[in-house]
Amino acid sequence: MYTGISLKPPLFEIGLKGYIYGKEALKLAKAADRISKKYKVSIIFDPQYVDIPKIAEETDNLYVFAQHMDSVEIGTGIGSILPEALKEAGAVGTLLNHAERRLTLSEISRTIKRADKVGLATVVCADSPEEAAAIAYFNPNVILAEPPDLIGTEKSVGNVQKDFISKTIAMVKKINNKIIICNSAGIRTADDVKDVIRLGAEATGSTSGILKAKEPVKKMEEMVRALKEVWLETHS
Amino acid sequence: MYTGISLKPPLFEIGLKGYIYGKEALKLAKAADRISKKYKVSIIFDPQYVDIPKIAEETDNLYVFAQHMDSVEIGTGIGSILPEALKEAGAVGTLLNHAERRLTLSEISRTIKRADKVGLATVVCADSPEEAAAIAYFNPNVILAEPPDLIGTEKSVGNVQKDFISKTIAMVKKINNKIIICNSAGIRTADDVKDVIRLGAEATGSTSGILKAKEPVKKMEEMVRALKEVWLETHS
Amino acid sequence: MYTGISLKPPLFEIGLKGYIYGKEALKLAKAADRISKKYKVSIIFDPQYVDIPKIAEETDNLYVFAQHMDSVEIGTGIGSILPEALKEAGAVGTLLNHAERRLTLSEISRTIKRADKVGLATVVCADSPEEAAAIAYFNPNVILAEPPDLIGTEKSVGNVQKDFISKTIAMVKKINNKIIICNSAGIRTADDVKDVIRLGAEATGSTSGILKAKEPVKKMEEMVRALKEVWLETHS
Amino acid sequence: MYTGISLKPPLFEIGLKGYIYGKEALKLAKAADRISKKYKVSIIFDPQYVDIPKIAEETDNLYVFAQHMDSVEIGTGIGSILPEALKEAGAVGTLLNHAERRLTLSEISRTIKRADKVGLATVVCADSPEEAAAIAYFNPNVILAEPPDLIGTEKSVGNVQKDFISKTIAMVKKINNKIIICNSAGIRTADDVKDVIRLGAEATGSTSGILKAKEPVKKMEEMVRALKEVWLETHS
Repeated sequence: MYTGISLKPPLFEIGLKGYIYGKEALKLAKAADRISKKYKVSIIFDPQYVDIPKIAEETDNLYVFAQHMDSVEIGTGIGSILPEALKEAGAVGTLLNHAERRLTLSEISRTIKRADKVGLATVVCADSPEEAAAIAYFNPNVILAEPPDLIGTEKSVGNVQKDFISKTIAMVKKINNKIIICNSAGIRTADDVKDVIRLGAEATGSTSGILKAKEPVKKMEEMVRALKEVWLETHS
Repeated sequence: MYTGISLKPPLFEIGLKGYIYGKEALKLAKAADRISKKYKVSIIFDPQYVDIPKIAEETDNLYVFAQHMDSVEIGTGIGSILPEALKEAGAVGTLLNHAERRLTLSEISRTIKRADKVGLATVVCADSPEEAAAIAYFNPNVILAEPPDLIGTEKSVGNVQKDFISKTIAMVKKINNKIIICNSAGIRTADDVKDVIRLGAEATGSTSGILKAKEPVKKMEEMVRALKEVWLETHS
Repeated sequence: MYTGISLKPPLFEIGLKGYIYGKEALKLAKAADRISKKYKVSIIFDPQYVDIPKIAEETDNLYVFAQHMDSVEIGTGIGSILPEALKEAGAVGTLLNHAERRLTLSEISRTIKRADKVGLATVVCADSPEEAAAIAYFNPNVILAEPPDLIGTEKSVGNVQKDFISKTIAMVKKINNKIIICNSAGIRTADDVKDVIRLGAEATGSTSGILKAKEPVKKMEEMVRALKEVWLETHS
Repeated sequence: MYTGISLKPPLFEIGLKGYIYGKEALKLAKAADRISKKYKVSIIFDPQYVDIPKIAEETDNLYVFAQHMDSVEIGTGIGSILPEALKEAGAVGTLLNHAERRLTLSEISRTIKRADKVGLATVVCADSPEEAAAIAYFNPNVILAEPPDLIGTEKSVGNVQKDFISKTIAMVKKINNKIIICNSAGIRTADDVKDVIRLGAEATGSTSGILKAKEPVKKMEEMVRALKEVWLETHS
């Protein structure tokens, strides 16, 4: 866990994947930056690697993350994502082990250690409460645990999620209670955001829910405002 | 083969791998930019992904390439290198299938097609004349063929290279004579550059030969000047 | 190309994948063995690795192949498929680079070389005529080229196949005319077998067409008989 | 954890990797079978896949394991190691996640579940006490935890191992105290076997220590006898 960064719940994460890039990504980043400031909610924003420098430079409040990082050391490893290069480019962390980019257990361990050393926060994905617990031993900053069959779907939060989240929290917090628990599965609306936080998640987010909306910025603002509201409601 | 770019021999390629990045990479890029202009030699420069935008913006003559690219389409694929994002960031091409990042045959085919469509040139690596011929069917702009046991070594160009290069040229040119033949194996000095061009290569380059030199810029200039001299000597 | 084996067209290939195994696979193998003898058609039979020894021992006419093989040398490489072990177990060849198990170009090259040296025939898969030509440079015994979107489907042979097959033959035979051209895409009936051979293929086969039939042995016999008939019709 | 098998400490594991196969592997298996009976020590024996059926058939006491297994279901997946096929071939378990064959965290989870369902025991490798704890959440039968830089070496057991083993035991047993702790790093002699058991391991083993010995059977017997002696000394 990299402690040189003040990541505090509630967090909202927007992973762009390969949906948007360049100018369009920068525009969305600036909107996210304003929304983060307005609602005092920390937003993790994951653009394509090449878009990191400009977004980091032109925003003030966003936590700009890479979508992936390798554990390679300075030297060879053509085509790899070098931790030191991410850091100097302005990234403050990286996502790891997403369902679309699984890592071996050993690589999860090595990459979190590299991130800690270089000074980058880590959000590590897990498919189940057991995987979340397993990952907790390597002390990432955030564990993004969600049932894989809900990712990118339009299914809403239900009983499956209830058990999933409470079990994840119980298992992870016992190992390291500083790890932030994030769950973004099937988040399509502001109400979904409220549901998942009421179930105990400390962070949430959305990719396709925002990027496929008619008005992405409006949808993003609704979600972040809902996150703020439900957080105040449940944590004060 | 993307024809919207005027890549013409002699070419010189500097792949930074993960040796340098950020400000240091930008500084070397600017020096390479001046050297390219001074000697009228096209230089392909492959930095870390995050360094592409600034280097593309702050140089005039370099051909800025990515070190790798995925064939993914716009949409999902977290952590992948999206062709359209590279293009908008200022890259004009990508390296593919390097010994440190091998691709399946199908992925080589798909990725070159994606590059052609998006408008990016391709430099594709091969281990042997036969692999070079195989790759020639997919029509990359450049084939970087070199004996794998010479990569990154300090062995100099010899008889192994002579047969290797002449066989590669014969096999590739028969399939598509517009493909440029590059060979960078074991290039440590200006004399190595001259040797490999005299053996028939149309392009060469160096990573560790330059980056591990006491004065990398001086070493780079010696090599590029040698490339220019030997090219005039052999092609006029 | 391993020449210590007398693989001659017409060939029929049955790849079991993970559909059947153990006693059920042995039973099908014995039926295939009888059918091969009855129609004098060479049958390549690819069971699970663990089923190779018994099937090789209890059949006389089948060409028992592995579904995959690694290029590893004797020594380390836990979990790998060692060529020498396959050979001693009774396999006479291996399938490589199937759409469900893609290899890098370098690994295709290395594995065919290992097979040649150890004494195993190779059937290497390709997605397109260009990939088939690329693979031809490494001289496998058979190239199994088929449009990937037809594999495992119920679409029948049509104009797509006509162009695909004739282009594949033209490109491959120019490189090495001893390589046998196989095409098994969408083969569901005896008529499909006849169609594909009339289009110029020298070998064909079926997995799901046979294994999902109500009476697999009967279906297999119909296909092999059709192969024999159409071969005599077109090659005498 | 598959409970239909009576794997009890002390265990000795011999993974053949790709060192020996066929008749030579069978001969060693028969010797191991006699030694297992003589010293009443359970021996896990991991040959090449193709050698599993005969070794399972011709030995009475060995626990014959695969060196790897995939989580694929019955159906497609050419070249994969189907759990049901291993089981029917006589294997009683499988090794997973060896340093030479790393799995993603999700695949470790899925494969152990498949093994449990099909009825196969699992020995899962880990690089560190933390990885061992992570794996413990998926309840394999055995965790083979060892410092990666000691695997295959001639370094002997020392203080590194002492801390490593005691920490592994403490972490794993807290999660599931039925998981057997194995450590085989750097085991070259009977004395090494005694050392590692005295440090708390419940199982050990050797590959190169046995296979590269002048008299492998003699070396194996010395190690197994030492295991029995030290076990009686420390557990009665």
